Amino acid sequence: MTPASLVDGAPADTVGIDSRGLAYGDGVFRTLRLQDGGVLHADEQWRKLAADAQRLDLEVPPLDVWLADTAMLNHGQATGVAKWLLVRRSEGRGYRPTTRAAQRIVQVSSLPPRVASAALTIAALRLAAQPALAGIKHLNRLEQVLAARELRPGTDELLMCDHDGFLVGGLRSNLFWVHDGRLLTPFVDRCGIAGTMRARVLRIAAGLGVAQAEVREGGAALMAADEIFVTNALVGIWPAHRVETRGLQAPGPLTQRLARELGPPFLI
Amino acid sequence: MTPASLVDGAPADTVGIDSRGLAYGDGVFRTLRLQDGGVLHADEQWRKLAADAQRLDLEVPPLDVWLADTAMLNHGQATGVAKWLLVRRSEGRGYRPTTRAAQRIVQVSSLPPRVASAALTIAALRLAAQPALAGIKHLNRLEQVLAARELRPGTDELLMCDHDGFLVGGLRSNLFWVHDGRLLTPFVDRCGIAGTMRARVLRIAAGLGVAQAEVREGGAALMAADEIFVTNALVGIWPAHRVETRGLQAPGPLTQRLARELGPPFLI
Repeated sequence: MTPASLVDGAPADTVGIDSRGLAYGDGVFRTLRLQDGGVLHADEQWRKLAADAQRLDLEVPPLDVWLADTAMLNHGQATGVAKWLLVRRSEGRGYRPTTRAAQRIVQVSSLPPRVASAALTIAALRLAAQPALAGIKHLNRLEQVLAARELRPGTDELLMCDHDGFLVGGLRSNLFWVHDGRLLTPFVDRCGIAGTMRARVLRIAAGLGVAQAEVREGGAALMAADEIFVTNALVGIWPAHRVETRGLQAPGPLTQRLARELGPPFLI
Repeated sequence: MTPASLVDGAPADTVGIDSRGLAYGDGVFRTLRLQDGGVLHADEQWRKLAADAQRLDLEVPPLDVWLADTAMLNHGQATGVAKWLLVRRSEGRGYRPTTRAAQRIVQVSSLPPRVASAALTIAALRLAAQPALAGIKHLNRLEQVLAARELRPGTDELLMCDHDGFLVGGLRSNLFWVHDGRLLTPFVDRCGIAGTMRARVLRIAAGLGVAQAEVREGGAALMAADEIFVTNALVGIWPAHRVETRGLQAPGPLTQRLARELGPPFLI
């Protein structure tokens, strides 16, 4: 039977109780889409993993090691989800990191179902500003856990603001909207995650000559938006048909154009 | 051989790779001093664990269960350190918590040595303000890991400020200082941990009729302080003989008076 997870390349479904991942969340991770038996946008995902690891001063194994692990777990599934975790090794106790060496954990699971377009709600919980950790997909995710308690039936994704009331992104996604032909997305320099799909969509928009900007705007900006969508590595571009009580065309024309450029498996 | 850790009361030194502690830091913990074979201030520690658990909506096992676990691990050690962790059980995937049930982890180790008084340095890294998590000893401790990289030989404890430059506390302790006969300590309502020893010292000071206040003050306040000390459950009251380049009497007279009231094993 194929195992569901590997730790440092060996079948395992546990980590040590002294893991700095458990004690402190001292690690980073990636959620990746498996497609046609391979890892979608693997290069980009690895580069982001490496960049995040560098922010925490963690050694990152080369891409081919991650891909070999993932392939070992992914026998014959056409689609799926891989999770790559990189957790600092434990040496003695205390907060101070004494090594850059990290444990490599790979898990594979099935792709969750999703509806064609999303209803968005703005969460009451606000994200703390911490530039030292902003943009990084690290293992300190209690804010997301707390915010997720606000998920109600009928909401597909929660939007998060910072303490100044500026939009940051979705609970599990980055946020985009279109206003007067411009593609807008929140800054993620004080909190939030700079997702690989966010970067890809910005590149695609630039390639199409679409005006774009990172902005600090509150939820009111979405009430005037012509189109709204969220992005991540699993869903690609996910158009919103509703934000709070406001209905929207989903997908809007620019959203469709970007999705067409993004290509399969994300055509909408 | 006595095991060093128990998971849900059974000898174990691993947790599942799907642990929400590893994935999100979805849990709380306590660090406790073992003294004369027992847990020091066990009632108070449990009440704080329960209060923190409630903030995250986690079920907490009764004190006697924690004490029984700890006793099973602590054969004949006069002193030591116990760590109690409470981690939400995993059910399915995603941030949203679907259960209040939690895994109970108990570890016992030896008491680390410490010098009689501490040299304090103010860390450059500043703590993010998140009222929803402030005061709780939860498993999201990446800020502490990042700050701990600033520890240099000659510094015994780092002091942390928030993004507004207000003192919050020590990396592993709460902070107190004396100014004109008043005992001052930072608010911990926006970030930081409200330690059990902090609460105990404030109660002791009140009992002695010492004027006290929670304050928002920057590091400059320490340059005018008559006495400074930090507290936690392991060290009790730890007088500072230096903050940055400024020397201090350690312990000062009020620090000594408080330590006398706190009693053994924390007499200084």
